[in-house]
Amino acid sequence: MSEYLPGLAGVSATKSNISDIDGARGLLAYRGYPIEELARHSTFEETTLLLLDGELPRQGELDAFDHELRANRKVKFQIREMMKYLPATGHPMEMLQSAVASLGMFYPGNGRLAGAAGGEDTDYVHNMTVKINARMGTLVAMWEHIRHGYDPIPPREDLTYAENFLYMLNGREPDPLLARILDVCLILHAEHTINASTFSVLVTGSTLASPYAVIAAAIGTLSGPLHGGANQKVVEMLQEIGSPERAAAYVDRRLGDKQVIWGMGHREYKTKDPRATILQGLMGKLIEARGGDVNPLFEIAQAVERVCEDRLAEKGVYANVDFYSGVLYTEMGFPVDEFTSIFAVARSAGWLAHWREQLADNRIFRPTQMYTGKARRPYMPIQERA
Amino acid sequence: MSEYLPGLAGVSATKSNISDIDGARGLLAYRGYPIEELARHSTFEETTLLLLDGELPRQGELDAFDHELRANRKVKFQIREMMKYLPATGHPMEMLQSAVASLGMFYPGNGRLAGAAGGEDTDYVHNMTVKINARMGTLVAMWEHIRHGYDPIPPREDLTYAENFLYMLNGREPDPLLARILDVCLILHAEHTINASTFSVLVTGSTLASPYAVIAAAIGTLSGPLHGGANQKVVEMLQEIGSPERAAAYVDRRLGDKQVIWGMGHREYKTKDPRATILQGLMGKLIEARGGDVNPLFEIAQAVERVCEDRLAEKGVYANVDFYSGVLYTEMGFPVDEFTSIFAVARSAGWLAHWREQLADNRIFRPTQMYTGKARRPYMPIQERA
Repeated sequence: MSEYLPGLAGVSATKSNISDIDGARGLLAYRGYPIEELARHSTFEETTLLLLDGELPRQGELDAFDHELRANRKVKFQIREMMKYLPATGHPMEMLQSAVASLGMFYPGNGRLAGAAGGEDTDYVHNMTVKINARMGTLVAMWEHIRHGYDPIPPREDLTYAENFLYMLNGREPDPLLARILDVCLILHAEHTINASTFSVLVTGSTLASPYAVIAAAIGTLSGPLHGGANQKVVEMLQEIGSPERAAAYVDRRLGDKQVIWGMGHREYKTKDPRATILQGLMGKLIEARGGDVNPLFEIAQAVERVCEDRLAEKGVYANVDFYSGVLYTEMGFPVDEFTSIFAVARSAGWLAHWREQLADNRIFRPTQMYTGKARRPYMPIQERA
Repeated sequence: MSEYLPGLAGVSATKSNISDIDGARGLLAYRGYPIEELARHSTFEETTLLLLDGELPRQGELDAFDHELRANRKVKFQIREMMKYLPATGHPMEMLQSAVASLGMFYPGNGRLAGAAGGEDTDYVHNMTVKINARMGTLVAMWEHIRHGYDPIPPREDLTYAENFLYMLNGREPDPLLARILDVCLILHAEHTINASTFSVLVTGSTLASPYAVIAAAIGTLSGPLHGGANQKVVEMLQEIGSPERAAAYVDRRLGDKQVIWGMGHREYKTKDPRATILQGLMGKLIEARGGDVNPLFEIAQAVERVCEDRLAEKGVYANVDFYSGVLYTEMGFPVDEFTSIFAVARSAGWLAHWREQLADNRIFRPTQMYTGKARRPYMPIQERA
């Protein structure tokens, strides 16, 4: 029996080819490609295919995949009708877990995982990957309308993933700059090695459960406040601060009370989170393009950032990806409590890549326990219990 | 970085007080109490409370818990209406994952997990535990009617958990012997240390996700054919064999082809699975009570067991709990594809006990990976890709 390490901290739970973090140097790469280059040159669709297949696609491969994604955005009316029975007060992540699990009932076939060599039936795995990734955005946008009592806006096939998501949410032609910023946000959130939700994918996937059961499990894990939801906290913090002048006092009070500043610092990175630098640049571009006519949260965020840089940079604590994404999502019209669902839409790419990797060399997860409970004792009749 | 052990085999993932297996001696105990004594003297309700609280309850405690369970069997009509949109061809475990995830939307409050000392709000945890455990049986029985196009049979408060489950399924006053056999089956399946689905509970629970998200994740993990479903395979095997005379030829052919005999042998036990011995006794009692007038599967099962005892006992391979439970479930009127859901109903007791234990000393699960992928490489424009 091995030493017990709470949370399996530092324990290798898998071998993986998908992504790599160099926290000391502030580097993140998907399949070897630096995140900065993917953010500059790639799209969410291409990055998803890269994560899944391991190589950047040729034009024909990308076109075929993109075509499949577009054709698979529609969601059956049964799912829509079911959503109408869900309470509007329920959390969007709970809706998403339930809806993805339901979807699986319409696409049976995980028996095909068990039979094939290496545990993998390529056609089934590919088809389900496309179906899940394409529909995640639709489900999230549908719920935003349904929970307010309105009919959802059907997806369009003539738009990119990011454009169509904005369209389904707002019902307007998407602003090209916001669509590109969302595209980059999706790229940046698509994958980040093994965290709790991705680990869930491996554990649930290892029993050869259907990919819907697997992604539903990961959504459940991501829904916990210790995992997803930091960008929601950032926006709530900025709203609480209320104006740029109050940033310094707020930050100093929090630091004095030894409390975290939401969106500052990251467990994995000792230098600045490379994704934060990218989003910071995009935020600057957006402010410039709008001639400063942006949501007041931008100005508050910039003030908080300046104060934090002054107080925390020497400790290696910088703004992380969540600090900017929440502000940008607000500008795109996403309600705060939908942020984690949008994270899930993006991360479905990485989750599905890890699911495929797990299947290719599968072994069921069956760790052991240290029993620390009572020794054997005889049953005691209820009358004799003190 | 630690050594990489596929599936975390032999790695301690938690300290636990809940159950303990001594595989060499064929012993299983819940909270120290031998499974044989619980099967003989306890009920599913009392065993659930024992698993949750750690001690056998006094009469007043048991009565209060049982009263709560009975009062919580009802499921909101929204869930029933949602089920009507699910395809009848979908697997019951997919329905169950989806339905449990949906239920969570009606009972918000997992924010209460994050604030309390030790991560636990006792009232919330207790209430949700009762709601989930009580409703699991109702959901499974509802689906059996709805998928065939019939209205579900509402639960009754005047029956035990096992009696009410049989009643909701068959719509008749439950046969007392079958109800007691089901009660014992639920006790025997309620808990079994850390396997993949229970490990899922720990991983998803560690992010402070809601208990509905946690149990839905575990249901997804249990749904995989490498985990749940062995008793279904036993019944399918017995049906394939078709008559007692063909048992020996079937077993010898399978063994000659180095294939498993479903329901024979168990990873954890080197001697006979103690749960199998208990079920074997109950099966004998049932055959006796019916004067031999039982499902033909009983006779085939007994023939297979005799042949296997002759061929495999010296290798330490005996019938396990799944060998008998499938045959007994068939006699109770459960369709073969519902068996894993009934396993989930029973196991929800253990899952919820592990969820509570995780919360009491929580640390988020965040193992690491061994990166085996490509080294850093520059992005390549799509025109240049070979």
